Amino acid sequence: MNLAFVLRRARRLYGDRVAVYRDDGHLTYEHLYERVMRCANWLLGAGLRKNQCVGVLLENRQEYLELHYATSWTGIWIVPINIRLSPGEMAFWLNDSASRMLVVDKRFAPVVDELRPKLTSVEKVVFVGSEADCPGGMESYDASLSNAACLPPGLDEPAEDDVAGLFYTSGTTGGPKGVMLTHRNLYANALHVIAACGAASSWIHLHAAPMFHAADGTATYYLSLVGGAHAFLPVFEPEFFLKAVARHRITTTILVPTMINALMNHPSLGKADIASLTDILYGASPMPESVMRRAIEHFGCIFTQAYGMTECSPIATILAKQDHVLNTRKVNSCGRAVLGVDLQITDFDGSPLPPGKPGEIVLRGPNVMKGYWNRPDITATTLRGGWLHTGDVGTFDGDGYVYLLDRVKDMIKTGGENVYTPEVEAAIFAHPEVAEVAIIGVPDLKWGEAIKAFVVRRPDSAISDTEVIDWCRQRLTHFKCPSSVEFLPALPKGGTGKVLKKVLREPYWRNRDQQIS
Amino acid sequence: MNLAFVLRRARRLYGDRVAVYRDDGHLTYEHLYERVMRCANWLLGAGLRKNQCVGVLLENRQEYLELHYATSWTGIWIVPINIRLSPGEMAFWLNDSASRMLVVDKRFAPVVDELRPKLTSVEKVVFVGSEADCPGGMESYDASLSNAACLPPGLDEPAEDDVAGLFYTSGTTGGPKGVMLTHRNLYANALHVIAACGAASSWIHLHAAPMFHAADGTATYYLSLVGGAHAFLPVFEPEFFLKAVARHRITTTILVPTMINALMNHPSLGKADIASLTDILYGASPMPESVMRRAIEHFGCIFTQAYGMTECSPIATILAKQDHVLNTRKVNSCGRAVLGVDLQITDFDGSPLPPGKPGEIVLRGPNVMKGYWNRPDITATTLRGGWLHTGDVGTFDGDGYVYLLDRVKDMIKTGGENVYTPEVEAAIFAHPEVAEVAIIGVPDLKWGEAIKAFVVRRPDSAISDTEVIDWCRQRLTHFKCPSSVEFLPALPKGGTGKVLKKVLREPYWRNRDQQIS
Repeated sequence: MNLAFVLRRARRLYGDRVAVYRDDGHLTYEHLYERVMRCANWLLGAGLRKNQCVGVLLENRQEYLELHYATSWTGIWIVPINIRLSPGEMAFWLNDSASRMLVVDKRFAPVVDELRPKLTSVEKVVFVGSEADCPGGMESYDASLSNAACLPPGLDEPAEDDVAGLFYTSGTTGGPKGVMLTHRNLYANALHVIAACGAASSWIHLHAAPMFHAADGTATYYLSLVGGAHAFLPVFEPEFFLKAVARHRITTTILVPTMINALMNHPSLGKADIASLTDILYGASPMPESVMRRAIEHFGCIFTQAYGMTECSPIATILAKQDHVLNTRKVNSCGRAVLGVDLQITDFDGSPLPPGKPGEIVLRGPNVMKGYWNRPDITATTLRGGWLHTGDVGTFDGDGYVYLLDRVKDMIKTGGENVYTPEVEAAIFAHPEVAEVAIIGVPDLKWGEAIKAFVVRRPDSAISDTEVIDWCRQRLTHFKCPSSVEFLPALPKGGTGKVLKKVLREPYWRNRDQQIS
Repeated sequence: MNLAFVLRRARRLYGDRVAVYRDDGHLTYEHLYERVMRCANWLLGAGLRKNQCVGVLLENRQEYLELHYATSWTGIWIVPINIRLSPGEMAFWLNDSASRMLVVDKRFAPVVDELRPKLTSVEKVVFVGSEADCPGGMESYDASLSNAACLPPGLDEPAEDDVAGLFYTSGTTGGPKGVMLTHRNLYANALHVIAACGAASSWIHLHAAPMFHAADGTATYYLSLVGGAHAFLPVFEPEFFLKAVARHRITTTILVPTMINALMNHPSLGKADIASLTDILYGASPMPESVMRRAIEHFGCIFTQAYGMTECSPIATILAKQDHVLNTRKVNSCGRAVLGVDLQITDFDGSPLPPGKPGEIVLRGPNVMKGYWNRPDITATTLRGGWLHTGDVGTFDGDGYVYLLDRVKDMIKTGGENVYTPEVEAAIFAHPEVAEVAIIGVPDLKWGEAIKAFVVRRPDSAISDTEVIDWCRQRLTHFKCPSSVEFLPALPKGGTGKVLKKVLREPYWRNRDQQIS
């Protein structure tokens, strides 16, 4: 079982069906298969071999899909590059993976000049887009594919435990690391999603979240396995999103809560034709129930929540449609372990805890990574005892629903009590004048740690620190309330929109390394 | 990933839900888990160890389920015995597997006296049923479980590629063979069924087909994975089946077409309360469209067809509910490869054939057996090139739907033409006076093989051989028509109701070994 099988299957079962919707037409699975076979042959012709890397720095587009399948067919590793990184960070990923080829499009071609002097292994830069736009010193993807023959049959395909790609994650320890996901890992994840969500060949998925990230990446394979169609939004922008949904009659998409929020606050939402949407998967962070309630109302469809991380390809738990019933406690959970995932909550010495007790979420299953590329030390720690240690604090109830409480590293210990920052953040976020909020622990001589809130005010708000603290005192136990509040114009965020608490924490914990990393 | 995980998951997610419905009450998953833990500990206490076998000769009942889980938890191999075998055949399975324990119930306890002198490895016979009925020389399962403590936590569980059981098959070559199915094999099959059929925790499954056989066996794991409930029919009998459906509000069951036929011909069907039935899976052989049409009418629910064999745990293809639309060609297919199965039709030299060309069905996937126990020769032939050679002739259409034509060994070669016996059988079966029919090839000097029909007349019918032949000539190309007809009171059948063509063929082909085996 490898990922080549996914496309072979799609071609055999769904050859005449639409694989890709574009603004200028569509491609069937038969046609997509042929393009992938050309792409695979061209990659080999360019001298790339099994276990060598290709860096991909593209907006969402059909060629991303082609490169996923062509690399996985030939045993070449794909290295999706976070499009929001600085050139220095991009160079680190490309060099760390020893990528021999880099694929860019019009948006990222200008970065190449700045990148080149930093790169130690890239021999060829390939340009995706109109051949006429191809800058000097780059090879045109379009021209190369036109000239390439299809991959001849009979070549050895990768084994299921071979690596399919390096999916970099900033993680919370040890800087950026390449997560080695195997063919089996990604295939298992696809099967878990299909079993949980009932994906079908009638699905038309909009790749709206960035394709370099595992959240949307999950749709690459499960959708093709069931013969659904792919459509692409180059970059997420609410207006374009709504137009694409209407144009391609999109049925499903994967969003992060910040995107859902942006859509709900957008004036066009009420006027847009989004009746075709039946399934919105969201992940990366939970949505407060109040937001969920508005989202269901606005989008007119039920949501499915996924919790996971790149290291498990990426889905660990799913809160299914039928569990998104408001006014029950379950809707505040991130659902239950998907079918192949064995999930436990453990004490910090590794002993399993019963329902109701908070501890670290650990899991194992066929979707758990092979390890971090070239980082045996952190691999051994993260996978100790055969379990993936997520670094998340959670608890589950008697029915196995998992409730996320915090990151192990973000949890605040104050006066002998554990404070889970999302609970405090939710209380503050409920204030009508608060646009964004993040809570950290800062050193405190008396309590060990004190609670500090960073707040972004809504436009025209002049809310003060004492008002924020008073608001909390009316809603939370005293020890959970912040003792200081700082107002910022915006919170520092990573590539997928997650708030970077380590940036907020750094000035307070500098030279106290147990808390920064 | 092993089968212990399935029950552990069911307990964590569905602990309070009903695992087993009995006539005298029910058992939750929490309770079932506890009984399995006792059973596992008792098995180890009785001296059984990893990779040793327990033969199970039981009617359908809760203890069958317990033994499945208790053996798989401890790495012991379960050996389900076909309840329709002669004592000599049973002894062969038990000796071939070196089973150290044999478990029987009231129905099979009387066979033990005849079995004992033939057994070479069984040290202990265990009786399932009321302790008061336990014959001398046997150990009471009930008493043993009452006395056993639960398995202590922390024992090593089996690995995913460890064997979970030996599932004997008569097969068509080399006599009975133990199919080694691993934990991963059976787990993969369960996941494939869930993805194809959308099994849910609301399912209440009636184990109506014999549990020793892989067809119903498939429900053992997929049902527990989703938290559905099990109910048991000790032995299939239409009257009891209908009562059990009404009593337990059964939603799903797995039947073979002969059972569906028996139910449709039963006078109680029209009066029975079977409105709870939503999903009937059937397999082992296809149903003619005319029978399907009547069945959908009679049962008031849509059917799902599965094609497979013990060697692939057992499901290879599924014709889903939504494909059971009458008046399309697809309804005559056995559906498409399930999600994890890579299926090809190959020429007899192993080259893949395009849609429309008949050839042998071969497949690979995580559900394909480890091999035949102690039969490396036949294992190597059957799994040559990494593909399971099914011995079935079929073809697929442009959408990947598979059409079964015949067994490779049953196919008749006459005058240079291939005749697929099911086509001829279907034509004859359509005659209102024909109850059963089987077609074989017999040696013929002129044509190589001639076509012979064995017919079972309906009660009060006196249809003649020339009438049968004339009926065929009006419906089939000339070379497909039988040249001789023989009337029998019944067709010889195997344990799962399949017609044993080799018994019919034997007198004609004796001393011509290329055709008999």
